[in-house]
Amino acid sequence: MCMAINTAKFGFIKRDTPREINLDPLQTGGILTPEARQALQEWGDGYSVCDYCGGALDQIKTPPIFDFINKALPEFLGCDQARVTNGAREAKFAVMHAVCKEGDWVVMDGNAHYSSLVAAQRARLNIKLVEKTPAPEYKILPEKYAEAIDAVKRESGRAPALALLTYPDGSYGNIADAKAISKIVHDNGIPFLVNGAYAIGRMPFNAKELGADFVSGSGHKSMASSGPIGVLGVSNQYAPKVLAKSPTNKNKEIEFLGCTARGATIMTMLASFPAVYERTRPERWQKEVEDARWFSGQLESLGLKQLGDKPHDHDLMFFESMPFYDISQKADRYFLYREMKARSIHGIKPGLTKNFKLSTFGVGREKLGIVVDAFKEILQKYST
Amino acid sequence: MCMAINTAKFGFIKRDTPREINLDPLQTGGILTPEARQALQEWGDGYSVCDYCGGALDQIKTPPIFDFINKALPEFLGCDQARVTNGAREAKFAVMHAVCKEGDWVVMDGNAHYSSLVAAQRARLNIKLVEKTPAPEYKILPEKYAEAIDAVKRESGRAPALALLTYPDGSYGNIADAKAISKIVHDNGIPFLVNGAYAIGRMPFNAKELGADFVSGSGHKSMASSGPIGVLGVSNQYAPKVLAKSPTNKNKEIEFLGCTARGATIMTMLASFPAVYERTRPERWQKEVEDARWFSGQLESLGLKQLGDKPHDHDLMFFESMPFYDISQKADRYFLYREMKARSIHGIKPGLTKNFKLSTFGVGREKLGIVVDAFKEILQKYST
Repeated sequence: MCMAINTAKFGFIKRDTPREINLDPLQTGGILTPEARQALQEWGDGYSVCDYCGGALDQIKTPPIFDFINKALPEFLGCDQARVTNGAREAKFAVMHAVCKEGDWVVMDGNAHYSSLVAAQRARLNIKLVEKTPAPEYKILPEKYAEAIDAVKRESGRAPALALLTYPDGSYGNIADAKAISKIVHDNGIPFLVNGAYAIGRMPFNAKELGADFVSGSGHKSMASSGPIGVLGVSNQYAPKVLAKSPTNKNKEIEFLGCTARGATIMTMLASFPAVYERTRPERWQKEVEDARWFSGQLESLGLKQLGDKPHDHDLMFFESMPFYDISQKADRYFLYREMKARSIHGIKPGLTKNFKLSTFGVGREKLGIVVDAFKEILQKYST
Repeated sequence: MCMAINTAKFGFIKRDTPREINLDPLQTGGILTPEARQALQEWGDGYSVCDYCGGALDQIKTPPIFDFINKALPEFLGCDQARVTNGAREAKFAVMHAVCKEGDWVVMDGNAHYSSLVAAQRARLNIKLVEKTPAPEYKILPEKYAEAIDAVKRESGRAPALALLTYPDGSYGNIADAKAISKIVHDNGIPFLVNGAYAIGRMPFNAKELGADFVSGSGHKSMASSGPIGVLGVSNQYAPKVLAKSPTNKNKEIEFLGCTARGATIMTMLASFPAVYERTRPERWQKEVEDARWFSGQLESLGLKQLGDKPHDHDLMFFESMPFYDISQKADRYFLYREMKARSIHGIKPGLTKNFKLSTFGVGREKLGIVVDAFKEILQKYST
């Protein structure tokens, strides 16, 4: 070991981004509850949850991880069996790796998150993207799944080994007709994976109602958990493959390398679960959708344009913002970021002005009003 | 979603195990520093480190994750390039999956951690275990690697695709002659992976000095980090394979699914790094080894027997404890756990009396003395 490493810049580091109002789509659903903050302090040490482990994380009775993974979580996801993973992408890779063979084809929506593509590439699968409708809607229509499946059959001589839908997608917050897609996929004898990283923990969600054989969710994205942690739901039909155990180490599941969220992450998920469960009730979610639609309307009245589903059914929205782009041509491309930062509003990436994504999840009408006023002020300031 | 989930048992849960003295081998190296505890609170929210991310975790300049992963960590590990992973096992799987093909053979020491076997099984490799010497030493001798490699060649008609050594192993804390093993492995044209989950962050460690092409380490086991988080070191020779990027998403590395420790975990590793770096200095580690040897001697004077390397070179030790087993035959098998718990000493698994593992890492001579006295007292109490 070299003895000359300068460690002075490490140690405790402050987080300096102001965030009294946070609209970052990656972050709005991952803000910890007070209970999760407490859990971090209590369970932060390495391997803290392993005191009473008999060899399998999901079997730990104290703390009640067994009850969470084997009872509450399958009910919450609407599936037969569940596991925690190191994230939604790790859940997707586990499914792809377990049910497909190298060289197989996977069909996925054209709005799929990059991690779905990379997971398929890691599993050495071929990818066929399902076409989306043109701008400004970018919808994923069920019949396009049929076309993609047919194309794979034609080109490769065999059916795809898996179909994946992003529900909703992370670019436009579009919610496709999963049930209709499931029917087409299943009619072709193909298993169906729904990536609900922006759904599970935010909105009502039920794997069986959607017709999903597998679902993936994200703790740090949508379940108020400290990451990396995700959830995987699987039907009894496919559980033997996905949850297969090691031939040499009888209680270790191969796809999870024996253990996944082995630390404080799982305890933050348990800590936030009562609040997360409450916030996904239909009446709570309906309020979120109303807030999103109101916010979209306000921004459109300022000359911005919301792309994707309209009226919108999710808190994640994509805006084309030509008025701000026009200003950036006179000012500079960082003006919007600076102006928002000065108002302690976080969420628009530095340098973006022409279009950006925002999430209104959990922000509430009052703070959303402050954001709308901020946009108005900035437009006025630069129009004079 | 079913509306009848009882969430009352979740929320914040206290950790009730007393642990004024902690000897649990899984935990002694993972206890957070005060800086890491602070980092958890500061960076606990989901995706907190992503504010200034341009698309790759290891490229984030603020906080200084780039400097950590690309400068400090390779120097600390003694290798050309480094990455953070979701744990040592995830690092091992990434290496196996990247450099081997399904059906290839991997040779690993007979003391390998179960997760090395499960990682190889997930990568669909065949495993040849390198024989260890008989009780009580259970040593891994370099020449046995040569035998195992020859056996694979004989049985399969080709050389193994990878060799792995656990350094030290997690059962006996034995430290094998990695350098000599590396020579044998490399003479056969085979790349060499050293799993240093119990070394990196505890003791002096240098991949190049050991002759390792890849190394895996554990943040939650040995780097005072909140898990799940691990480290991977790789030589320039193998970096193109292990760090290969996605053809569709140019800055996303396939084996890491684009991103790994995307949350508070990496910030706890940065926070603890100055202290972890200090504690791995040779003079600090020498004190740890002396403490371990003293403790082993004390326990042997009570009639226990330490297995594995003797004199011992690591804090993790395996004891055969017949005097306690004899008592359990008259009392019950949980008496030792109860007696230790009453003294706020944590680390011997409930129900074990005949043999158990302990770690003296970071405990210090004074507290180790209290443990020795506790063992004495318990023996006396039950001998009357």
